Amino acid sequence: MADYVYGPGRNHLFVPGPVNIPDPVIRAMNRQNEDYRSPAIPALTKILLEDVKKIFKTTTGTPFLIPTTGTGAWESALTNTLSPGDRIVSFLIGQFSLLWIDQQQRLGFDVDVVESDWGHGADLAALERKLRNDTLHTIKAVAIVHNETATGVTNDLAAVRRLLDAYAHPALLLVDGVSSICALDFRMDEWGVDVALTGSQKALSMPTGMGIVCASPKALEASKTAKSVRVFFDWKDYLRFYEMGTYWPYTPSIQLLYGLRTALDLIFEEGLDNVIKRHNRLGTATRFAVEAWGLKNCCQKEECFSDTVTAVVVPPYIDSAEIVKHAWKRYNLSLGLGLNKVAGKVFRIGHLGNLNELQLLGCLSGVEMVLKDVGYPVKLGSGVAAAAAYLSNSTPLIPSRI
Amino acid sequence: MADYVYGPGRNHLFVPGPVNIPDPVIRAMNRQNEDYRSPAIPALTKILLEDVKKIFKTTTGTPFLIPTTGTGAWESALTNTLSPGDRIVSFLIGQFSLLWIDQQQRLGFDVDVVESDWGHGADLAALERKLRNDTLHTIKAVAIVHNETATGVTNDLAAVRRLLDAYAHPALLLVDGVSSICALDFRMDEWGVDVALTGSQKALSMPTGMGIVCASPKALEASKTAKSVRVFFDWKDYLRFYEMGTYWPYTPSIQLLYGLRTALDLIFEEGLDNVIKRHNRLGTATRFAVEAWGLKNCCQKEECFSDTVTAVVVPPYIDSAEIVKHAWKRYNLSLGLGLNKVAGKVFRIGHLGNLNELQLLGCLSGVEMVLKDVGYPVKLGSGVAAAAAYLSNSTPLIPSRI
Amino acid sequence: MADYVYGPGRNHLFVPGPVNIPDPVIRAMNRQNEDYRSPAIPALTKILLEDVKKIFKTTTGTPFLIPTTGTGAWESALTNTLSPGDRIVSFLIGQFSLLWIDQQQRLGFDVDVVESDWGHGADLAALERKLRNDTLHTIKAVAIVHNETATGVTNDLAAVRRLLDAYAHPALLLVDGVSSICALDFRMDEWGVDVALTGSQKALSMPTGMGIVCASPKALEASKTAKSVRVFFDWKDYLRFYEMGTYWPYTPSIQLLYGLRTALDLIFEEGLDNVIKRHNRLGTATRFAVEAWGLKNCCQKEECFSDTVTAVVVPPYIDSAEIVKHAWKRYNLSLGLGLNKVAGKVFRIGHLGNLNELQLLGCLSGVEMVLKDVGYPVKLGSGVAAAAAYLSNSTPLIPSRI
Amino acid sequence: MADYVYGPGRNHLFVPGPVNIPDPVIRAMNRQNEDYRSPAIPALTKILLEDVKKIFKTTTGTPFLIPTTGTGAWESALTNTLSPGDRIVSFLIGQFSLLWIDQQQRLGFDVDVVESDWGHGADLAALERKLRNDTLHTIKAVAIVHNETATGVTNDLAAVRRLLDAYAHPALLLVDGVSSICALDFRMDEWGVDVALTGSQKALSMPTGMGIVCASPKALEASKTAKSVRVFFDWKDYLRFYEMGTYWPYTPSIQLLYGLRTALDLIFEEGLDNVIKRHNRLGTATRFAVEAWGLKNCCQKEECFSDTVTAVVVPPYIDSAEIVKHAWKRYNLSLGLGLNKVAGKVFRIGHLGNLNELQLLGCLSGVEMVLKDVGYPVKLGSGVAAAAAYLSNSTPLIPSRI
Repeated sequence: MADYVYGPGRNHLFVPGPVNIPDPVIRAMNRQNEDYRSPAIPALTKILLEDVKKIFKTTTGTPFLIPTTGTGAWESALTNTLSPGDRIVSFLIGQFSLLWIDQQQRLGFDVDVVESDWGHGADLAALERKLRNDTLHTIKAVAIVHNETATGVTNDLAAVRRLLDAYAHPALLLVDGVSSICALDFRMDEWGVDVALTGSQKALSMPTGMGIVCASPKALEASKTAKSVRVFFDWKDYLRFYEMGTYWPYTPSIQLLYGLRTALDLIFEEGLDNVIKRHNRLGTATRFAVEAWGLKNCCQKEECFSDTVTAVVVPPYIDSAEIVKHAWKRYNLSLGLGLNKVAGKVFRIGHLGNLNELQLLGCLSGVEMVLKDVGYPVKLGSGVAAAAAYLSNSTPLIPSRI
Repeated sequence: MADYVYGPGRNHLFVPGPVNIPDPVIRAMNRQNEDYRSPAIPALTKILLEDVKKIFKTTTGTPFLIPTTGTGAWESALTNTLSPGDRIVSFLIGQFSLLWIDQQQRLGFDVDVVESDWGHGADLAALERKLRNDTLHTIKAVAIVHNETATGVTNDLAAVRRLLDAYAHPALLLVDGVSSICALDFRMDEWGVDVALTGSQKALSMPTGMGIVCASPKALEASKTAKSVRVFFDWKDYLRFYEMGTYWPYTPSIQLLYGLRTALDLIFEEGLDNVIKRHNRLGTATRFAVEAWGLKNCCQKEECFSDTVTAVVVPPYIDSAEIVKHAWKRYNLSLGLGLNKVAGKVFRIGHLGNLNELQLLGCLSGVEMVLKDVGYPVKLGSGVAAAAAYLSNSTPLIPSRI
Repeated sequence: MADYVYGPGRNHLFVPGPVNIPDPVIRAMNRQNEDYRSPAIPALTKILLEDVKKIFKTTTGTPFLIPTTGTGAWESALTNTLSPGDRIVSFLIGQFSLLWIDQQQRLGFDVDVVESDWGHGADLAALERKLRNDTLHTIKAVAIVHNETATGVTNDLAAVRRLLDAYAHPALLLVDGVSSICALDFRMDEWGVDVALTGSQKALSMPTGMGIVCASPKALEASKTAKSVRVFFDWKDYLRFYEMGTYWPYTPSIQLLYGLRTALDLIFEEGLDNVIKRHNRLGTATRFAVEAWGLKNCCQKEECFSDTVTAVVVPPYIDSAEIVKHAWKRYNLSLGLGLNKVAGKVFRIGHLGNLNELQLLGCLSGVEMVLKDVGYPVKLGSGVAAAAAYLSNSTPLIPSRI
Repeated sequence: MADYVYGPGRNHLFVPGPVNIPDPVIRAMNRQNEDYRSPAIPALTKILLEDVKKIFKTTTGTPFLIPTTGTGAWESALTNTLSPGDRIVSFLIGQFSLLWIDQQQRLGFDVDVVESDWGHGADLAALERKLRNDTLHTIKAVAIVHNETATGVTNDLAAVRRLLDAYAHPALLLVDGVSSICALDFRMDEWGVDVALTGSQKALSMPTGMGIVCASPKALEASKTAKSVRVFFDWKDYLRFYEMGTYWPYTPSIQLLYGLRTALDLIFEEGLDNVIKRHNRLGTATRFAVEAWGLKNCCQKEECFSDTVTAVVVPPYIDSAEIVKHAWKRYNLSLGLGLNKVAGKVFRIGHLGNLNELQLLGCLSGVEMVLKDVGYPVKLGSGVAAAAAYLSNSTPLIPSRI
């Protein structure tokens, strides 16, 4: 079947997820179903579970590959570690942290919301106050998005860990790494993250459908007493099948397993740290372009700038939704909408996943033309020039081709 | 990447799921990610939601395409319609009904289990007694698997509806159609089913990853007051996005959407009733073979024989697990294991999904050779001959080729 | 299997063939073999032969879909219409016309070569002199490339026809349309072209492997008496199987047939004339960029500028082969080498096939960075700005998305 | 795009080419075009040229991977080694040897045809007489099909070599290995074959489009003086590019190169000798079935029985074309037609390429039902039983699964 709304040439996919899938992953997934109870799939799974720990930078964590999305991964993180009524300190800094908080409330937790203006990072000073006062350890968990996809803000997880340690606070640290893991520097063990999670369609550059959740030993311990009701998302069932060596309490997607195998192979071939550097390079280049256009980053502080998504603030006389719509209609360019509080005010450039310099420059040149089309007085070529000047100095040779 | 344990020629996939994917579906899914917030995906989704109702034979139901498995679809059916402590009458007739009951119990319902010997259908006489006595309508739901995949037993849903009607009982009728819908005669509206569900990797012949749940108006009404905790599986979120016309509360698998489009196209081209007839033809042929081999069907009554899976009882001196292992090792044939109470005692031939006569006959000839290999005195060719005799009289010409 | 020399993100393919394949074509070709003697393949072929005439703009021509490359298509055009010793007037204007002339000579024809400096078009004044003097009609054919891929020069075929008509000369007009058909304005019937040919991997945007040759009634007539030895390329065999309705004298590639079906569908959906306009738009944008960089087009006259490939002349102190090598090594950008006389002196940007504006701008920004890397004093962003200024004014909305 | 004439389940492809493609090969070919002048493709080609020699069992031969079919490979073998008027002894034993002889005649050679009744092998006694009498060495080449696909007859190449050696005759030995190489025992070096050739869509189990020709040193030497006109098929051009290390005189199919890589990987993983044994096993099983049905093999002598294709003679009151048509229409089974002299009299079961035991048994059960349908008094199950009895005793465990 052809695409629904065909346009010549490639779609330029720059939403912050789902992202571009590398051809080798598409190829690996181009396959028949298999019996997941044959010896082949457990053998494949066993290695995947070992290898997937590397993208979390953990050796002690236990990963779960759940047939779900990021929203389901959130639910898995919460219900396996907490009991109804448990107090969670949770940071509201944008649409996705808001949605997670909504989930936390609906799941029956006592959510202690720490709100920041959208465009700012998590208010760690507020966290510190709360920890200081919580001598009775009523706070059972701190829940935080590593990277808020709606505003392009990256939180400082090491600082959160330092605060918890400073107060020797036993709260679990639950991290949404959906738009960070495999793209931003993420160190589960070093930062003492108790549950970290991501989705396959983000920086792993696969189709949607696999929620990847990784639990620290402390989180696993907590899951033994957590009273939240759960079945589909229950780690217990997974752990029982891990022990039996058959691995799957219910049917996994064969295609996603082979896709994950190849996605990890590509990341390891490039080198995870090189992948992170590439994201920094593309993020920095994007910010140079935004600056050259005379526009503002929705993210207010340089130290919070996200290397996976940039939310660009448009002037008040422009509706950012028009930019997104027009980019798609005229240039086959997919940009991210502004959401909720920043709807109409920002558009987003996702620059995560399997992406290279010239793809980004093509996108930036498209954004320039769209800006001009909607009446913003952009100098065509200005953003591309600024980005290229940076990239030209920072892009390494492709190692396999030297 | 190649297959993990390569063998020449095709894998003969006869587990009762995941099943053989038709090539056009694999082709349709061989694609990049897309922005699911562009106009294209809602347009595609809108039509899919209309068309998917046809496989449930409902015009009044509301379908949900959830990124999950059958287990998640179960959870969606229960938590959206019931409150903790609600009484459910639930039939235990094999491993999958047992797992569903386990889920019901862990989700906090008051499960009134009606057990049958494995190989028998649901005990409707017991249901009748319970309904008769339940003048206070403490039974909030009747939960039943249409087809028990572990034993190859098909329940009579029309009879269940007749009983509910006979006692004018308002209990919701919740049906697991995982190994029936798109393969067996299933009539959601006519039989007054309140929630019906299936998984993409069963008779729809797609990869795993989409749980398809369909709710009657009465079930939707119940969801407004059901107090079970749910977020990921909450229909409310879907309904809100349906109303907005953007359809997705969180990211769907683009590939599965296009795959579903093609899977439905193929089913409609063949004709759903012809698909059902084909399953009856292949099921009947399989049973003729089993009889010719001198073996017993695990299903005890002819009226319960399943047209999607046949559980074959082996003599006590044979371990059925050996049959499954050997079939895979020598003939690249994937059969289903016996589970739980019937582990070692039965092996299963899945004959559902996109499958034709000669594929089945190849499988049956393989089973014969395996039976011989494990020491059962089978006459080679006997089962194939019996099946072929039946198929030769019943297989129609392929309509597109007449 | 992964790519041999993996780099993150997409390869930016801007050689003048093979070109980018649209995803729907890749999908259509992702399939099993079929029996080409079943009723299905002749039915498919019959429609393809009708539809493929549209890309030649002919209603009277007879097309042949030959399992070969452009080189084989050349041989087919010559050997089916001419006899050894026949005089051909042939224009040498670059590497590909040179290769065709080499073939003509090796096939035993009397080739009357009309040479131009590389970068110029065919010398039609010389042709006129020859025609004027050829009152005995010793010239049996005029052979000309519509678009010389090595230098980015497009010849004026209408003018060739006018000359032949002016002298009422019966010579056959044989046209290599390899890098023109489906991209440049080409009118087989109107221009009285006797044999036109292209290859699947050029503007049709398919894999290599199908040589498409179209013969006028006059060419078919000539084939009855042409004495050149031929078997594999003999049209007679095809014509015999056309008549029988089985179409194939030997085995075709099933995959390429389905690929062609989809490639044509996409071209017809966009509209052939819109495809041609898109190529003009991308060609013009490229030339604006080259000008902004302060570089010269290898093609010397504006009326000959090619809309499918631009050969860019580099300053004498730069080796253009370094540009090509470096683009691939650092930016995953594939450019065309300079060939033969212009080796080291030009690099080529192919802008044909299934390509859109932002892909081209990404390429142009890459060329800028490469130029800087090899020591050319380019102003980064200058070429992109010039191209974008033009594209911003000329790119239409995507019709299916309005 | 869906298949043209869709039927549920798999197509059972049992024509003697094109054959079933293994999924890993389809996956490997599911890819974009690439620049064939980048360093990647020559690197890939270099290894392919080394590895492809293994399927010819040659260390001294020079292979050519030509974008053509078997018919083109024939032409390449002839025109590169012979001059017009050269005498070739050529064996006519069926439709494909007839077609090759037709080509030889049309290419201007002096073809000394040695005819056998169809169903018999090459008349080597006649060859011996000719060699004995040819003291002047007027015979320049002996051309022979290793396996005649139309009748299922395998010739004894070692015997041909012995005869040539016995008379110390310098004639080139040209072998069509189209339906033998990679399936039957073939030893280029040991048997002194001078040119051997096959096509990608036969036992290599790839799509059509690559003619693989391998030349002995003696053949290469002959090509230096051979006067047959050739350009597209000229080995000289290939050899020049081999020397330059760029390998391709014109554009190869990138997809077929990666496909060949994987096809060879699969063959080497199974082991070429195991592949040959598997073909013997499937061929033998087929012959047992034919015997059980009471039908005759078109091949008259046991020592000539082909392990890649069996031509089955039907009783005079049945038109074998009806069998083929009916198999496709009712059972989605593709069988080979009888050709030319045996049209209507035989149908053919191709059992070559990537195929296993249960696929064959499915086919055989289908043939039985078709035979019954057309009025032949077959005992259903008889052929399958006979084949299974043999296979059950001869099929090894799959090595990767032990």
